[in-house]
Amino acid sequence: MKALVYHGPDAKAWEEVPDPTIQDPTDCIVRVEATTICGTDLHILKGDVPAVTDGRVLGHEAVGTVTEIGPAVTNFAVGDRVIVSCITSCGTCSYCRKGLPSHCQTVGGIGWILGHLINGTQAEYVRIPFANTSLYHLPEGVSAEQGLFISDILPTGYEIGVRDGGVHPGDVVAVVGAGPVGLAAIMTAGLHGASRIVAIDLDDSRLAAAARDFGATHTVNSGDADWADQVMALTDGLGVDVAIEAVGVPATFAAALKVVRPGGQVANIGVHGEAVELPINEKWIDNIRISMGLVNAVTGEMLLRMVAEGKLPAGKLGTHHFTLDEIDKAYDVFGHAAEHQALKVVMTAAS
Amino acid sequence: MKALVYHGPDAKAWEEVPDPTIQDPTDCIVRVEATTICGTDLHILKGDVPAVTDGRVLGHEAVGTVTEIGPAVTNFAVGDRVIVSCITSCGTCSYCRKGLPSHCQTVGGIGWILGHLINGTQAEYVRIPFANTSLYHLPEGVSAEQGLFISDILPTGYEIGVRDGGVHPGDVVAVVGAGPVGLAAIMTAGLHGASRIVAIDLDDSRLAAAARDFGATHTVNSGDADWADQVMALTDGLGVDVAIEAVGVPATFAAALKVVRPGGQVANIGVHGEAVELPINEKWIDNIRISMGLVNAVTGEMLLRMVAEGKLPAGKLGTHHFTLDEIDKAYDVFGHAAEHQALKVVMTAAS
Repeated sequence: MKALVYHGPDAKAWEEVPDPTIQDPTDCIVRVEATTICGTDLHILKGDVPAVTDGRVLGHEAVGTVTEIGPAVTNFAVGDRVIVSCITSCGTCSYCRKGLPSHCQTVGGIGWILGHLINGTQAEYVRIPFANTSLYHLPEGVSAEQGLFISDILPTGYEIGVRDGGVHPGDVVAVVGAGPVGLAAIMTAGLHGASRIVAIDLDDSRLAAAARDFGATHTVNSGDADWADQVMALTDGLGVDVAIEAVGVPATFAAALKVVRPGGQVANIGVHGEAVELPINEKWIDNIRISMGLVNAVTGEMLLRMVAEGKLPAGKLGTHHFTLDEIDKAYDVFGHAAEHQALKVVMTAAS
Repeated sequence: MKALVYHGPDAKAWEEVPDPTIQDPTDCIVRVEATTICGTDLHILKGDVPAVTDGRVLGHEAVGTVTEIGPAVTNFAVGDRVIVSCITSCGTCSYCRKGLPSHCQTVGGIGWILGHLINGTQAEYVRIPFANTSLYHLPEGVSAEQGLFISDILPTGYEIGVRDGGVHPGDVVAVVGAGPVGLAAIMTAGLHGASRIVAIDLDDSRLAAAARDFGATHTVNSGDADWADQVMALTDGLGVDVAIEAVGVPATFAAALKVVRPGGQVANIGVHGEAVELPINEKWIDNIRISMGLVNAVTGEMLLRMVAEGKLPAGKLGTHHFTLDEIDKAYDVFGHAAEHQALKVVMTAAS
């Protein structure tokens, strides 16, 4: 088969590799119908994730069809159309049973292994370990492209931003960063009854999309000198209840801390490349909480129901479309997303 | 009357000042029977709290007797023995009604005003605004000295460390710093069913007291090169469920982060004088939470019941005793607490 293979920093190729095969009774093989690129894949290509070694097939998001199952796979059958979760989890260890498969001990303590520690989804076929608990059925009424965003980005924005951020009915929520994962938080904040959802970004076209397509009730350009005052003016003057950080750089973490009210929470979604300063000498007295984490992807079925009912505009995240063998072009577009006004790029198999 | 008056950094005097008087209908006057010194008072004397200005009577903890009440005071009468809460709160603003009087908007947004923005309790008499919601009755079976530690330190250790830290039954809890506030967290962690309570400190005599008198089940000297390994060995190898920081310096915040497990929480109690580094590039993936805050003192009545029932050894916090007019000596001892093996110093009025 063909797959997108990592060959060290700044080197990748769409090339011939051996087909994946069943290795354990809990495995299945999925023929990839649609896959996408995550910001994390760009980090890997910069050499930021040393656990990814030469020869690894990248990618942790896909929709496809089961072509083969191991004898212990009971929840899925050959021919089933499925969504691959970015989190591979055994379902039986203490972390899995507590709803934290992000730290599945059986797969090594971090549930994200696809395109990281084992070969991933940017390929014609992918082997999925622990298939019973690492796939979803693609339901009626959800397109392959909508389902694709259940692999990672929708649960990440919802679970790490909105749910773990503790959004409550009536809250004013700020989302710093209106890229794909920020938009996932924006589109799901309404599930917890947010009264105002303030999108904050430097890019006016992203802000416009956040308001037009994804449910932001207000937008603030963080390039404005008085951006924080603009956010405060959308509250009672004391700040937002929950500030969601969806970029992963020190400036956006600081921005989230700046606008959170006493008693509020900063929910960090961004994947950071360096430490940040926490001005705890000023903030200790403010009774705030800071949360962060890798998605557990335990809310995928709930999110699928909402997508199926037309209540979450997941499909609008896919702005640029390619065939699987155009994946190099897709990486180019996603790597310069702002320039192309791209959100998520979608690669589909030739049928 | 006599009172301990702040006169700028490193300057204070036990001197004659005017008696406090009722200024608002919600005020009462309390004759101080016992008071103590908080680490915050030492910060003030270093000049770290610029809101405290020359002429301010210090102190925010006391037990005493009501000598005068304003016409709107209904919950207390002249002659009542009371505990002064370190948090003054109106009881009617949105923060007070949400259980967050630490940010009472009526008193200016920070509920700690005694010995800060208005005259405090290190005096023969003190005016208490909003008396209805800023005092407790001293119950039968609780001594003045036990009650004194309900003003601030017990609720701080419990609310900010144990409760807001999310301690659950069976949890392994580490408390970094076995000074008074750390001991308050140690002695209250059992209220939430902690299975192991690990005291961590550089001072062996404090560690010994933590285990002997306050309920620590294990102790680790953080001066040991392998201290973190010792803590890990008291867990399943992945770290503690809740790490409570009870010092307020970068090294202890880093220590708490070092021993917390994936899915766990760092609860910061310490008052910090500088920003800390948050290695979010390593920790984002760990699904941890960090909490911090000023005590709300909303659990005082619960804690008093536990003290009255002999279930919390609050009285053991008071290690050194003075009369009120020996307050300078008491400050000297508390300012060199380790050398004197002091926890809390107690000053009582001559009867």
